[in-house]
Amino acid sequence: MIESLNSPHIARVKALIGSRGTKERKSSGLFVAEGLQCAREAMVATTGPRIETLYVTPSGRIKVEQISDLGGFNVIEVSDDVMKAMSETITPQGILAVCSIPSNSLESITLNGTRKFVYLSEIQDPGNAGTIIRSADAFGIDAVITSPGSVDLYSPKVVRSTAGSLWHTPVFENIELSTVLALGVQAFTLAAEGQKSLKDLKITKDCVAIFGNEARGLATAQGVSSIEQVKISMPGNAESLNLSAAATIVMYHLANIPSS
Amino acid sequence: MIESLNSPHIARVKALIGSRGTKERKSSGLFVAEGLQCAREAMVATTGPRIETLYVTPSGRIKVEQISDLGGFNVIEVSDDVMKAMSETITPQGILAVCSIPSNSLESITLNGTRKFVYLSEIQDPGNAGTIIRSADAFGIDAVITSPGSVDLYSPKVVRSTAGSLWHTPVFENIELSTVLALGVQAFTLAAEGQKSLKDLKITKDCVAIFGNEARGLATAQGVSSIEQVKISMPGNAESLNLSAAATIVMYHLANIPSS
Repeated sequence: MIESLNSPHIARVKALIGSRGTKERKSSGLFVAEGLQCAREAMVATTGPRIETLYVTPSGRIKVEQISDLGGFNVIEVSDDVMKAMSETITPQGILAVCSIPSNSLESITLNGTRKFVYLSEIQDPGNAGTIIRSADAFGIDAVITSPGSVDLYSPKVVRSTAGSLWHTPVFENIELSTVLALGVQAFTLAAEGQKSLKDLKITKDCVAIFGNEARGLATAQGVSSIEQVKISMPGNAESLNLSAAATIVMYHLANIPSS
Repeated sequence: MIESLNSPHIARVKALIGSRGTKERKSSGLFVAEGLQCAREAMVATTGPRIETLYVTPSGRIKVEQISDLGGFNVIEVSDDVMKAMSETITPQGILAVCSIPSNSLESITLNGTRKFVYLSEIQDPGNAGTIIRSADAFGIDAVITSPGSVDLYSPKVVRSTAGSLWHTPVFENIELSTVLALGVQAFTLAAEGQKSLKDLKITKDCVAIFGNEARGLATAQGVSSIEQVKISMPGNAESLNLSAAATIVMYHLANIPSS
C-alpha cells in the first residue's frame, strides 16, 4: 500500500487534473475518473475509455470488488491520506481510475440513414458538456462531437457531469463543422429567429443537431445555408434556455420522432 | 467615488456572498446580483426583487445608463479595485446590485385551473436550481417552490444561473410539500418505474411537477399516494438524466400540452 505523500503517483494524478491538465492529458493520452459511478462503467462497459490504473483505498477496494473481479486490472492500493492528496473532491470515495483516452476516428461511424449526432461548437462550460453527453446517452444519440476550441471533454468536471455516460456514448473532439457537414447529414441548429418549430422538424436521414457557444451562439451558422434553423417555442419571458437544457429538449425530440 | 479597500461597503457585499452568506442574507433580507444581465432585469422588470443599492464602476455606469434613467436608484460609484474586491468573479462587469429578497407568500397565488408549479424537494446543486428557474421562466411556469433543506435560491451561483429569470418567475422557499398538496393541485413526479410516459400525461387542473434530491430522489413520494409517477422514455443507456435537464423536459411538455 502506498502511504507516502511524496509518492510520484500523487504527482502524476494531480498533473492530470490540475490547472495545466489539458496539456498533460493530451501528451499522456490519459485522464482521471473519480468515484464509484465512473469506476463501475469503466470496469463493466464494453465500450469507452479503458482503465490504465485503478487506485483504491482499503474501503474503496471493497466497493469495487462488489462490481467485478479485479484480476484483470492494474490495481494500486493507497492510504486514505494519499487518496485525499490525489483527489479533486473534499470527501473522496476511495476510488480513482486513470483511464486512457480513446483515439476515436470519425471515420469509424457508419451512416445508415438513422444516425443521430450532436455537434458542439466552441462550448465552454464543463457542466453543460457533461450534461449533454449524459442526455445524449439517455436518448440514444450515436455520438457527441466537439469543435476545436471547445472545453476538454476529459477534464474532471466534464467527466463527473457525464455520470458514467462517457462509457456509453462515443465522443469526438476537435472536429471542424465542415467535416461533419461533408458527411451529407441533415443539419439543424436552434435559433430564436428560426421559422420552424422543433415540434415540426422532420428527420429524413442521418442528422446532426448543432449547438453554439453559451454566450455567442453559433458563429459559423450564418454562412452555412445547409443548416436548418429551428426554434423551441417558449411561451414565457426568458430570452433563452441554458445550453444543456435546450440540447436535452432537442435530443428528447430526436428520440421521440417517428422515423420517416 | 469609493476608492478605499477598507470601505464598509466591501465588507457588506462580501458578507452577503461569502461562505456564511445564507445566514447573512436571511438576517438582512438582502442578496447580491452581479453583472449586466441581472441588473437589467432588476431595473426594468416590474416583478421580482427590487434594487436596494446599485454599485457601479465608471464604465459600469455607462452600461446601466443605457438601460434606464438612474434617477430612481440608490447608485454608489466605486473604483475598479473596489468592485474587484466586492465581486465573486475574476473579471467583474462593473455592475453589482444589492437587492431585497421579496417576502413572497404562497397565499398570493390564485388558482384558476391552469396554473403550473414546480416543486423542488431538497435540491442541492445551485446550477440545477438556477437552470430550473430559467427554464420555468421560458415555459411559463407560474412559480418555483422549494422545500426546507434546499439550496438557497439567493446564493450567487443560483442567481447567476437564472440568467435574470429570478425577476420573472416567482419563487417560494422553505415550503413543505404537504402545504402544496393541500392546495388540491394535480401532483406528479418523475420515476424510472413510473407506469405512464410523460407524453401520455394529461393535466386536468392546476398542477405541480415535483422533483427530488439529485442523489436520493424524492423521499416523501413513497407515502404520498396522490402523487402520480410518470417516466421519461429513454431509449439509451444512461440510468438517469441530470435533474435540471429532466425538469426542463417536463416543463417543455407542460407548456405544450393542450389544456383540457
